[in-house]
Amino acid sequence: MTTNVTAYAAPAAKAPLERTTIPRRAVGEHDVLIEIKYAGICHSDIHQARDEWGGATFPMVPGHEIAGIVAEVGSGVTKYAVGDRVGVGCMVDSCRECDNCRAGQEQYCTGGGMIGTYNATGRDGEPTYGGYSTHIVVDEAYVLRIPEGVALDAAAPLLCAGITVYSPLRHWNAGPGKKVAVVGMGGLGHMAVKIAHALGAEVTVLSQSLRKKDDGLKLGADHFHATSDPATFQELAGSFDLIVNTVSANLDVDAFLGLLKLDGAMVNVGAPENPSSFNVFSLLTARRTLAGSMIGGIRETQEMLDFCAEHGLGAEIELIGADQINEAYERVLASDVRYRFVIDIASLRD
Amino acid sequence: MTTNVTAYAAPAAKAPLERTTIPRRAVGEHDVLIEIKYAGICHSDIHQARDEWGGATFPMVPGHEIAGIVAEVGSGVTKYAVGDRVGVGCMVDSCRECDNCRAGQEQYCTGGGMIGTYNATGRDGEPTYGGYSTHIVVDEAYVLRIPEGVALDAAAPLLCAGITVYSPLRHWNAGPGKKVAVVGMGGLGHMAVKIAHALGAEVTVLSQSLRKKDDGLKLGADHFHATSDPATFQELAGSFDLIVNTVSANLDVDAFLGLLKLDGAMVNVGAPENPSSFNVFSLLTARRTLAGSMIGGIRETQEMLDFCAEHGLGAEIELIGADQINEAYERVLASDVRYRFVIDIASLRD
Repeated sequence: MTTNVTAYAAPAAKAPLERTTIPRRAVGEHDVLIEIKYAGICHSDIHQARDEWGGATFPMVPGHEIAGIVAEVGSGVTKYAVGDRVGVGCMVDSCRECDNCRAGQEQYCTGGGMIGTYNATGRDGEPTYGGYSTHIVVDEAYVLRIPEGVALDAAAPLLCAGITVYSPLRHWNAGPGKKVAVVGMGGLGHMAVKIAHALGAEVTVLSQSLRKKDDGLKLGADHFHATSDPATFQELAGSFDLIVNTVSANLDVDAFLGLLKLDGAMVNVGAPENPSSFNVFSLLTARRTLAGSMIGGIRETQEMLDFCAEHGLGAEIELIGADQINEAYERVLASDVRYRFVIDIASLRD
Repeated sequence: MTTNVTAYAAPAAKAPLERTTIPRRAVGEHDVLIEIKYAGICHSDIHQARDEWGGATFPMVPGHEIAGIVAEVGSGVTKYAVGDRVGVGCMVDSCRECDNCRAGQEQYCTGGGMIGTYNATGRDGEPTYGGYSTHIVVDEAYVLRIPEGVALDAAAPLLCAGITVYSPLRHWNAGPGKKVAVVGMGGLGHMAVKIAHALGAEVTVLSQSLRKKDDGLKLGADHFHATSDPATFQELAGSFDLIVNTVSANLDVDAFLGLLKLDGAMVNVGAPENPSSFNVFSLLTARRTLAGSMIGGIRETQEMLDFCAEHGLGAEIELIGADQINEAYERVLASDVRYRFVIDIASLRD
């Protein structure tokens, strides 16, 4: 038996989001009912609500940066109890049987793919709806614990922006003695700066302009350069072990590859709509790699939340009411947010 | 005091190569004089002799797959003695002081770059001339030992084709339990098949057609597929740990990336003249990497020669006289060689 809950949804591609009600499934044996407190706004919410990646289904309730409190648990739930601080990220299920799922890399599930928190179809055949709503029901295996060390509102964006940069920083060994560049200082980039700094790496921000320089240095960057200045590419040639590219627009890939030293890697966590171009010589000449990384697995997401709590790291947020979502979307597109909009879900309960 | 020796040289870009004489420097304290016995013809000889990569200087004596016998050593030489079987590959010097040189990765020298065996300028300010000649003088630090286990003529191509594929196969851990695809079965590709098989990997050849299937299986491939058949890309989706791409034409990068499993790498060892295009999603969806690798360092080249000798691996060659070089170039361009032309330098001594 489903329960109707209040949500903000896009009724159709490119239509403004509006208040509505959506069904949530009954709490099953292994399910957790979460009273959502905060939901972050991710750039991919906008892409999907506007059907820019194709295959969108409506009505769509975006939101995969969810923080809340456990309100009810199923009879078989062992990890969580009512009152626990919990989160949900980009997925609410996967096949659990393929090699990648077994390895804790559920985001790369090959058994039909991970089931997205919204704009997907759940195992019950029903559409999934995301975090712009008062409640969500999720299998405990895909629920994360949010430790006390980080506020719930600042924790919400960790569930996507945080893990999206934490995973490649760890996989490519950012740490003491390593020089890490972060391209773009938005929602993802500002978390990459904080996390890479906390991991002990020497951090350089490569931003279009010096507009955010003070913020960058405050968040933990050691250096800050403008990519609009050609001297940046000469000065920093061959100097980085790792570049985490958080920009989803097409860049001059060869120019950035030239900033890597021997065996350096440029890892893309944003996805431009159009193909990118590169010259194989840019890779050959220093055994460089060009890679991509997509969020992180459940186990690693928990590790990231524990790490952030231990280091007192949350997102820099601007808290908004649900009625400001459409306006916030426009501001995200204009890069006018420092550094993540988070919806106060209390505003949906009025 | 220099000595004039017989060589085959391109007098100008796109002109046929012709018999001539070139100077070789006097044997210095740390130098080895090598009586060249065999010189392989590498596709890059043709690119450079025709000035297709720019910056070519003439007359040009190509050849960086050199095998011969030590004829004289300088007073300070400790590694080699007269009569030793030796080889020279793509470089004859480097700065020896940068981080990469100190790490044994002289091919990625950042102190001015490695000094090419030909079409470069030596430390003495004189042009370097390659292996299409009767003798060469090289600092012992850039001379390799060719063990008894491999014939000199079949060993010559190992100095470029062999190390170019051995280095990435080792760096990306080809071995037991790993599925390795080799794209293209020419001079580099056929050595990649032999070496990957000897390393214990499961080897698949991806060739344009099935024309070389029998050869591929004989050389050690476990599977052989035609890339002209679209079914190949469906059947093999997500199945390889490593793809070594030996083709220097532009490929459909996304199609090949789709053949990689989680954390798989596609390593390019050929360099197309024009930029390549890829979609970041192809990387993101399985944390794939796209990389490049260029020959190998001196230490690793010696390791490769020892490995090949131990496993009885040499190149499949077609031995020619120096007067057939121009014809051989045309046949290389038409992919009409199984699998490497090697010049019998005795033909230059007539």
